[in-house]
Amino acid sequence: MTAPVREHGLIERLAGAFRGSPSQLNRRHESDAELLRLPGSGVVLALTTDAVVEEIASGLYADPWLIGWMAVTVNASDLAAVGAEPLGILMSVVLPPDASDDLVAGLRTGLSAAADAHGLPLIGGDTNRGATLSLTGTAAGLVDGECPLTRCGARPGDRLFATGWLGLGGAYALGRLLPGSAPAVAFRPLARLREGRLLRRVASCAMDTSDGLIATLDELARRNGCGFSITAPVEPVLHRDALRAATAAHLPPWLMLAGPHGEFELVFTVPADRCDALAAAGADAGWAPVELGVVTGERGIVRLGAEGAPLDTTRVRNLFDEVGGDVPAYVRGLERLSG
Amino acid sequence: MTAPVREHGLIERLAGAFRGSPSQLNRRHESDAELLRLPGSGVVLALTTDAVVEEIASGLYADPWLIGWMAVTVNASDLAAVGAEPLGILMSVVLPPDASDDLVAGLRTGLSAAADAHGLPLIGGDTNRGATLSLTGTAAGLVDGECPLTRCGARPGDRLFATGWLGLGGAYALGRLLPGSAPAVAFRPLARLREGRLLRRVASCAMDTSDGLIATLDELARRNGCGFSITAPVEPVLHRDALRAATAAHLPPWLMLAGPHGEFELVFTVPADRCDALAAAGADAGWAPVELGVVTGERGIVRLGAEGAPLDTTRVRNLFDEVGGDVPAYVRGLERLSG
Repeated sequence: MTAPVREHGLIERLAGAFRGSPSQLNRRHESDAELLRLPGSGVVLALTTDAVVEEIASGLYADPWLIGWMAVTVNASDLAAVGAEPLGILMSVVLPPDASDDLVAGLRTGLSAAADAHGLPLIGGDTNRGATLSLTGTAAGLVDGECPLTRCGARPGDRLFATGWLGLGGAYALGRLLPGSAPAVAFRPLARLREGRLLRRVASCAMDTSDGLIATLDELARRNGCGFSITAPVEPVLHRDALRAATAAHLPPWLMLAGPHGEFELVFTVPADRCDALAAAGADAGWAPVELGVVTGERGIVRLGAEGAPLDTTRVRNLFDEVGGDVPAYVRGLERLSG
Repeated sequence: MTAPVREHGLIERLAGAFRGSPSQLNRRHESDAELLRLPGSGVVLALTTDAVVEEIASGLYADPWLIGWMAVTVNASDLAAVGAEPLGILMSVVLPPDASDDLVAGLRTGLSAAADAHGLPLIGGDTNRGATLSLTGTAAGLVDGECPLTRCGARPGDRLFATGWLGLGGAYALGRLLPGSAPAVAFRPLARLREGRLLRRVASCAMDTSDGLIATLDELARRNGCGFSITAPVEPVLHRDALRAATAAHLPPWLMLAGPHGEFELVFTVPADRCDALAAAGADAGWAPVELGVVTGERGIVRLGAEGAPLDTTRVRNLFDEVGGDVPAYVRGLERLSG
């Protein structure tokens, strides 16, 4: 766990010397969205920017409608993870010179559908011409009256949950990038904005699974100096389409949780004495959290099962970069790690 | 003036159906930054996103330090044009796979220098790997107590000003893109944040010259159903380096004001009875606005001189796109238009 995360290395090289704002509540990596206390008020502004670039280049997202949908959703999910009320989103679009009417129409309807579905209005943007298509969204939200959720605050003994079944992002990626060996999986995630707001009153920390469950647990363990025991068996935690995909591809089911493309659920921890409040809030909202396990005092150690062997989460997290994005090599590497 | 602006056509195709937010004070194209009234308060949040993409692809910006500087400055300038206090900026960076340490270090120091110079702290961002370098900034600011400046509100008889000498952006572009026929020009604009805040109390409308003076006047004429007479002679309005560049390149000086790459000054209008207040505010701040002319009731007509022939500003504005970005053809086209 002391091993560095490759993506963080790039961010440090680029942003190492930046000072940030005195109004900023979070330091780097401490929350999914940046949190600024507005001068002279108790209101916190949440801002986040997230681009859809590599997902287009790799072929992970090819349908223009899905590209538009995801450019909104990845940003909405960061607002969800801090428990913010959505204010609006700006979208900067780079269109290739040969962009067809179908491409533009697909992007427009996908963006519009996701903005409506998340209650996150498209308030502005920028257009440029460039060699390859990319979309960069920036979402704004407000946290009023209560503290925002961050990635920090988990304590040993807290219980670990997800807002829903996991693994759909991994299964979708496998179907897109290894179409010969894994089935196609439907994918249209909805960010958990409503659940994020409920969690502000009960959770001790939260983070979205945009990079997959294992990367999320690795990051939360780093931020909190804690470990996790995943005591729930894998099958009931997996989305049923993810379980089907793993079976069809003859892969261990947990691999659906390991990939760098996640399902945009929230993973969160709740102190034991607030679990009744969580259950009550969930019941009121018609929502059942998925229990994953427990926070431990074993700094940086993630175990599958209370007595299971530690999983090298940093290795899992860096593997995709280490193999240069070669998907078959990546899957073989994961299988070896799960030995 | 009823002719469409090509860039607007692309935005309509992409964003035509978007509903916006009920809290949004501006409609599309009405202000340089999006303006949202925060619920339950008199405070207005200003948000803007602007990407540096085409400027890199064309070779207009090649020095990594300048690319970083401009990615902050173009966004700071939009905050300036609405008179906002800067809160912070997010930066999403796409790095090519072969990005050298020098490139990353240059970007970092340019970003950092511009953030410090504008009092606009870098509060977060996103990094991706992609085929070509691009930077997308999103800046946030606040307008408290007074109405924000917008592009709307000019009335016939108002006087027309710029925050400083003009033409440096055009001269810089000419030197970069036609190095054989025009001299190199130093370029490191500072957004007019302080002046924008002063102008909230006196100006009737404002817009930055990121796309050059002529495009700015064309847009302001559209928004206000007015015209402009540029009564000031061109030479004293031009930055001295722009005048030198025009002379060296044997081009009419006004061409320095026509290109689509501007100098990030503000152009603004002031009712006649507030011009004394403008002069007093400028004197207090050690700043002298540059007077350009007057707002007229001639809808969509921009004249160089009170009795000059109307300039086809829409034609000027669309010309760069029409010639497919061919710089020599563009310059020849402008010379013909001024014929």
